[in-house]
Amino acid sequence: MDVRQFVEAHAAEFFGSLSEWLAIPSISADPARHGDVARSAGWLQAFLAGTGFPTVEVWQTGEPGSPGLPAVFAEWPSGDPAAPVVLVYGHHDVQPVEPLEEWENPPFEPVQRDGLLFGRGASDDKGQVLFHALGVRASLANSGATAPPVTLKLLIEGEEESGSPHFADLLRARRERLACDVVVVSDTTMWAADVPSMCVGMRGVVDAEISLRGPERDLHSGSFGGAVPNPLHAMASLLAGLHDADGRVTLPGFYDKVLPLSDAERELISRLPFDEKAWLAEAGNSGAAAGEAGYGTLERIWTRPTAEVNGMWGGHTGAGGKTIVPARAHAKLSFRLVADQEPADVIAGLRQYVAECTPPGIDATVTSDGQGVRPCFAPMDSPPVRAGVRAMERAFGREILFTREGGSGPEADLSDILAAPLVFLAVGLDADRIHAPNERVDMALLLKGAEAAAYLWDELAAAAGELTAAG
Amino acid sequence: MDVRQFVEAHAAEFFGSLSEWLAIPSISADPARHGDVARSAGWLQAFLAGTGFPTVEVWQTGEPGSPGLPAVFAEWPSGDPAAPVVLVYGHHDVQPVEPLEEWENPPFEPVQRDGLLFGRGASDDKGQVLFHALGVRASLANSGATAPPVTLKLLIEGEEESGSPHFADLLRARRERLACDVVVVSDTTMWAADVPSMCVGMRGVVDAEISLRGPERDLHSGSFGGAVPNPLHAMASLLAGLHDADGRVTLPGFYDKVLPLSDAERELISRLPFDEKAWLAEAGNSGAAAGEAGYGTLERIWTRPTAEVNGMWGGHTGAGGKTIVPARAHAKLSFRLVADQEPADVIAGLRQYVAECTPPGIDATVTSDGQGVRPCFAPMDSPPVRAGVRAMERAFGREILFTREGGSGPEADLSDILAAPLVFLAVGLDADRIHAPNERVDMALLLKGAEAAAYLWDELAAAAGELTAAG
Repeated sequence: MDVRQFVEAHAAEFFGSLSEWLAIPSISADPARHGDVARSAGWLQAFLAGTGFPTVEVWQTGEPGSPGLPAVFAEWPSGDPAAPVVLVYGHHDVQPVEPLEEWENPPFEPVQRDGLLFGRGASDDKGQVLFHALGVRASLANSGATAPPVTLKLLIEGEEESGSPHFADLLRARRERLACDVVVVSDTTMWAADVPSMCVGMRGVVDAEISLRGPERDLHSGSFGGAVPNPLHAMASLLAGLHDADGRVTLPGFYDKVLPLSDAERELISRLPFDEKAWLAEAGNSGAAAGEAGYGTLERIWTRPTAEVNGMWGGHTGAGGKTIVPARAHAKLSFRLVADQEPADVIAGLRQYVAECTPPGIDATVTSDGQGVRPCFAPMDSPPVRAGVRAMERAFGREILFTREGGSGPEADLSDILAAPLVFLAVGLDADRIHAPNERVDMALLLKGAEAAAYLWDELAAAAGELTAAG
Repeated sequence: MDVRQFVEAHAAEFFGSLSEWLAIPSISADPARHGDVARSAGWLQAFLAGTGFPTVEVWQTGEPGSPGLPAVFAEWPSGDPAAPVVLVYGHHDVQPVEPLEEWENPPFEPVQRDGLLFGRGASDDKGQVLFHALGVRASLANSGATAPPVTLKLLIEGEEESGSPHFADLLRARRERLACDVVVVSDTTMWAADVPSMCVGMRGVVDAEISLRGPERDLHSGSFGGAVPNPLHAMASLLAGLHDADGRVTLPGFYDKVLPLSDAERELISRLPFDEKAWLAEAGNSGAAAGEAGYGTLERIWTRPTAEVNGMWGGHTGAGGKTIVPARAHAKLSFRLVADQEPADVIAGLRQYVAECTPPGIDATVTSDGQGVRPCFAPMDSPPVRAGVRAMERAFGREILFTREGGSGPEADLSDILAAPLVFLAVGLDADRIHAPNERVDMALLLKGAEAAAYLWDELAAAAGELTAAG
C-alpha cells in the first residue's frame, strides 16, 4: 500500500484520534487549565506509544520551586545506524478561547463540517503534530520496514503559547537526548490551499523603552518655553531619526549581520499571488503601503528588519490645554529582526544612538532585557529545505513556493542549541483563525501533511551525505 | 507738599486701607467666593469715591443667563478739556490660596513684617491698583489743583485670575465710556527692587491638537510592521520637523508678522543683571539653555515666538511591551506669540504644515479654536512709554531698564478694542510669590508706585501733543 493510499485509508481513524486530543483544553496561559495540559501530554504519550514509538517520555520542565508544563519526547531509531537523526518540533498547548460567545461551536467539542475540522488547536498545533504519527505509519506501510528510514525524534512542547519560558533550558539540559542532524518545525502556514509553500524564515524581535528627563518638574511654558530643552521635542527627534528618507533604520551597525535577500528567493516571492490591496484593506489602512525603499510589501514583512514605535507618551495628555514644558517623555519600541541579527547587538546600537543624539540638558535612559527572540532562517538551497520541498512536491503534485513569517517562536533556539539546520513542514493556512474564535483546519491539507512527512523521511535519508557534510 | 512728602505722610493710612481690602477673599475661580468678589468691588467703589473720583460705578459683566463678576469703573475729568485721557487697568479678584497649610499667616489676615505686607492680592493686584488712588491725591496735593492734569479713568476687572472671560465683551459694550489716549497697565513686575524696570511686551499664546489616524485598529507588528505607515512615526516626524537646526519654527509664514527685536532693546536687555545659571537651576534643568540660534535666554523668552509640544501620546503606554503598529497618535501643542503675530494665522500655518508633511496612509486632524491670547507690545520709543520711564526715573532716582513678560492677559484686547497704546507701570517683583502661598509686596515699592503714578499724569499731560499725533 503506497503512502497516499495508507493515509487516505486511515483518515477517519486519524480525525477521530485528533478530535479526542482536541477535546482536552490544554491552555498553557490559564493556571486553572494546567492539569489539562498535563492530561494532554499523557494523551499524546499513550498515542505515540500506540503508534509504535519504542520510547515515549513526558518531560517535566522548570525547576522544583517554579515548575513548568510538560513536554513529550518520543524516539524511533532507524534500522540504519548511519541514517540521519531528525527532530520534529511542535506543541500541544493551545491559546485561550475568549471571547467564548463568538464560537459557533464550543472550542473543545470538535466538529467536522465542509471538509474542515473546528476546535481550538486543530491547526495550531495539535493537527500539525499528529499528522507526523500518521506519516510515519504510512512510511512503514509503504516500505514494509519495521523502523523509519531516519531516526525520528519528536519534541512536543507544552508552553509555546505562553512564550516557551523553560524551553531553552530544556534544550540545554537534554541536549544529548535531542541530538539531531535536522530540526523539522511543524507550526507554520502555507500561502493557500492551492498554493503549497514552505516557510524558510521567521523574524525575531527585541524591545526597549526610552525615557527622557528634562526639567525636574513641568515648567510654565510662558516663563521657560523656547529657552530650555523640551523632552518631547527631543523624543520626537530621536524617534523621527530612527529611519532615514529611504525608510532604512539608522541605528549604528543595524544591518551589519542582516543576510541579504537572494535573487532566487526574491524571484519566488514575486510569484506568490499576493493581493496587496486586500492586504491593506485587512490592515484597515487607507491605501498606502510604506517602508524600506527597494523592497515590496512581502519582502518588507518577511525579509527585512524594522524599528517600530509601539507607544509614546509624555506631558499633558488629558482634556484641554496645559501650557507646559514637560519634565518627561517616554517611548516603547520593538525591533523585528532577521537572520543573523542578534537582539543584544541591536539594543547596543540603540543605546549608542540615543546617547549620541540626545541634546544637552536632557537625560536619557534606555531599558531593555536585550534578550528578545532571535530570528531564524532556513536557506532555500540548504539540504534539508531541498529535501522538504521534494517531499511536499510529491504530496501536492505542484511546485512549492517559499514564504517567511513575520512572527517568531523558539525556532532559533532549537537550531542554535542543537546545532542543526531547520526545515519547516506545515500545512496551516492564514484562514485557520489560529488564536481567534472558530479555529479550524483544512482536513485534506492535514492528510497532505502526513503524506509529505512520510516522503520527507525518505528524502532526508537519501540526502544523508549532504546533511552530514553541512553539519 | 511735594509728591514724595505727601505719599510718605499718608503711608500708614494707605496700608491700613489696603489691608482692609486684602481681608476680602475675592477669589474669582471659586463660586463660593463670588459674593466676596462683589463685596470687593463695593469696597473699591466706596474707597475711590472717598478719594475724590466724581464718578464711580460697579459694572456687571456677562449676560443675564450667564452672569460674570463685577468690574469697577471710575472717572475723574481733568480741568483741561484738551488734556489726554488715560485709562488705568488692574484687577480686584485674586488667585485661590491652596495649599492653605503652607501660609505662615492666614491669606486674608494681612500682616506687615520687615517692610513687607503679606496677604493674597498684596502684589497681584490690589496693592498695585490702590497705589493709583494715593498717587492721584499726591498729584493734587502737589499741584494745588482740584482735578488731575489728565482725565483719569480706572477700569478694575473682577475676573482676571479666571481668564477674563467677559472682558473683551465689556470693552466693546462700554467702548465710548472707556475711550482714552493711553492705557496704563499696573499688573506686572520690575526686574528687582534695586533694578527698577518697565515691562514693554507680553507674549500671546494659542494652542492646538494634532491627531493622526493610521490603521483602523492596532496591528500586529510581526505581520504588518515595516510595511504600513505607523502614526507614531509620522507624529514624531511632524513634531521633530516643527523646528529647524537653528531652533527656528518651520511653520509657513510663522515669522512674517514678528516685530524684530530692536538693537536698542537688545542692548538694554543685555544690561539686566541676569544670572542664567540660577535661572536654569530654578527650572530644575541639568545645565543647558536651548532655543533659537542668535538669541540669548531673556531674548528667547520675551521677544521670540515658540512652538512647544505640551503633551503627546499614542499606542501602548502601559506596563510591559506590546508589539503593535498603533492606530492613533496625538499631540498637544501651544505657540507663544509676539507682536504682531495673530493666533489665527499661526493655526492656519500649522494646518498647512500638517497637511503637507503627513505621509500617505495617515489621516491628520488639527483642532484649535484659533483664538488664544494675542501678544501685546509697547515700543520703548513710543510717547506713553517715554512718559512712563520719566515718571519712574523721578520716583526711583535711577535709570529705568526694560523687560518683557512671558505670560499674557487681556492687554492686547485693551489696546486693540480701545485703539490706544499701552504703557506698563508696575512695581511687583518676581519675589512677591504671586499665585503661591505667602504672597507679599514690598511696601516701599508700592509707595514708589504711587509716586510714579503721580508723576505720570504730569508727564502724559506734557506729552499731550505727541499722544494725539500717535493716536
